[in-house]
Amino acid sequence: MKKVSVIGAGSWGSALAVLLANNGNEVTLWSHDKQEVDMLMKEREQKDKLPGVKLPDNVKVSGDLEETLSGKDVIVMAVPSPVVRSMAERMAPFIKEGQVIVNVAKGIEDETFKTLTEIIEEEIPGAVVCVLSGPSHAEEVGRKLPTTCVVGAKKESVAVMLQDLFMNEVFRVYTSPDIMGIELGGALKNVIALAAGVTDGLGYGDNTKAALMTRGIAELTRLGVALGGQIETFTGLTGIGDLIVTCTSVHSRNRKAGLLMGQGYSPKEAMDEVKMVVEGVYSAKAALGLAKRKHVNVPIIEEVNRVLFEEKDPREAVADLLLRERKKEHTNLTWEEE
Amino acid sequence: MKKVSVIGAGSWGSALAVLLANNGNEVTLWSHDKQEVDMLMKEREQKDKLPGVKLPDNVKVSGDLEETLSGKDVIVMAVPSPVVRSMAERMAPFIKEGQVIVNVAKGIEDETFKTLTEIIEEEIPGAVVCVLSGPSHAEEVGRKLPTTCVVGAKKESVAVMLQDLFMNEVFRVYTSPDIMGIELGGALKNVIALAAGVTDGLGYGDNTKAALMTRGIAELTRLGVALGGQIETFTGLTGIGDLIVTCTSVHSRNRKAGLLMGQGYSPKEAMDEVKMVVEGVYSAKAALGLAKRKHVNVPIIEEVNRVLFEEKDPREAVADLLLRERKKEHTNLTWEEE
Repeated sequence: MKKVSVIGAGSWGSALAVLLANNGNEVTLWSHDKQEVDMLMKEREQKDKLPGVKLPDNVKVSGDLEETLSGKDVIVMAVPSPVVRSMAERMAPFIKEGQVIVNVAKGIEDETFKTLTEIIEEEIPGAVVCVLSGPSHAEEVGRKLPTTCVVGAKKESVAVMLQDLFMNEVFRVYTSPDIMGIELGGALKNVIALAAGVTDGLGYGDNTKAALMTRGIAELTRLGVALGGQIETFTGLTGIGDLIVTCTSVHSRNRKAGLLMGQGYSPKEAMDEVKMVVEGVYSAKAALGLAKRKHVNVPIIEEVNRVLFEEKDPREAVADLLLRERKKEHTNLTWEEE
Repeated sequence: MKKVSVIGAGSWGSALAVLLANNGNEVTLWSHDKQEVDMLMKEREQKDKLPGVKLPDNVKVSGDLEETLSGKDVIVMAVPSPVVRSMAERMAPFIKEGQVIVNVAKGIEDETFKTLTEIIEEEIPGAVVCVLSGPSHAEEVGRKLPTTCVVGAKKESVAVMLQDLFMNEVFRVYTSPDIMGIELGGALKNVIALAAGVTDGLGYGDNTKAALMTRGIAELTRLGVALGGQIETFTGLTGIGDLIVTCTSVHSRNRKAGLLMGQGYSPKEAMDEVKMVVEGVYSAKAALGLAKRKHVNVPIIEEVNRVLFEEKDPREAVADLLLRERKKEHTNLTWEEE
């Protein structure tokens, strides 16, 4: 039994609080929002974002940050990517040296191009910052459907401790030392999912989307490896696996936002409609910036940026990606002599 | 304008006949089934297998094999994988030296472990046998939704000729010399799709299926490369791309058959219910045989074989694959010193 706090009571934070409590841990679930704290205390359920999943008795709901962070074995950070820096800054005064913090959000910071664990390490220098990622929609974890994730940590002993903390019969956790690869896969796939959603919104079929996803996997791997991730990570659960689930699932906000844009909504209208944070919109610009810095060719990420920030017609963007392209699938393979 | 014959008037054969005719070619569509020939002649539509898609005027329907095969520039073979050998044998007497034949079926022969182009080459030694594959459900090609495929041929000039033949605004064709990789990807993904369908049938969610598909891609690539395919092909449209579409699309017969087995149908009942040929059932045994011959670890293909041929409970098979496994995602990555 460990003392664990979860910072952020959205769908994923709430699902993980329930999971950790069911695993026998003493859990505190913190929200910045007074109304949300009251609702969670009264209803014992995240009615808005994870309906139908009750908080077990060993989840304590709190709005008091100092209390939430004091004397905990592990702190899980489950806040939207755009507020990770400000949240880490708020947390820093209450965090002890060597505190294990697990980031479960996915994204790259717009202006600095930093990953979320890099941001947390910067704001809370003494912490041991790890990551949990994989194809894991909160709604399905809440319903106890079989799910696989990867814990990334620099030291194997920390990764194994976290694996034991999260793992149970239906939530399988692997360990990996490749924090950078895990984070990049999680952030970049959101950008690809926006594009996949656009093809759905345009009324195209599974053939079209599969073509786009195939390109997306290649693009994500190319950029991720150039940025220092391991190729194995991008071909694994936190890369291909998470990309597949995000591009095909009805639960994905990134896909949903793309779908609405394909149907004619402006990027802003689409985000308003989805309500929850669409992380791919925030990561898209950073992904393009990183690609330029490393001179990596990223046609899908480029087109997503044009649709999001330059008012490009989504139909034109998909046509430019899929229908006007070079003719050999791979230019390095050898033909028989004529 | 070329003279093209399509052997086999199922959903894919009919969709390709329509595509080739719309591209301006003179097309003959052949069926072995007298009733099907009559229906196609009368209705000008494959009412049973591709409803809603009319045959253009420049598609001639025929039941006469010699007439169909004589004097053609290209012959497209679109018959189910289990009958490719007997069909090629029937065709052989009417095929001229150097005849270009494009196989569009996907499978591996049960007893010989041969790919379909290898079988055709064996039965029709003088022919130039090529392949067309990719994420391309017939129903969507019939509806002119954007689709990408790859043509594989030994010589680039032949591949480019076929690319020009099939390609149009919404059907994009790439070329590749890796016939073996293309065929293996197409055959093996059907086996993985059976497993993916089983998870759907068991009521598991997108998280579970994405985990299985991620493993499936790794397994297919490992086996395909051991058998002489190029790794680029397995990460491309005819590998990952086709696997994604087959595992996620409502149109996929292999997924559908797996889904029914997950819901409690026996393999035979599931195949009867799907009606059309479930190619993965035929390829599963050959895939396992090939893996054993090459000493490649293929846990998903093994479990599919157990469910198909040893009456293993599908729920047990999925549990054995996903819920009782080793703990590092990739064993070759390096940890920081403790």
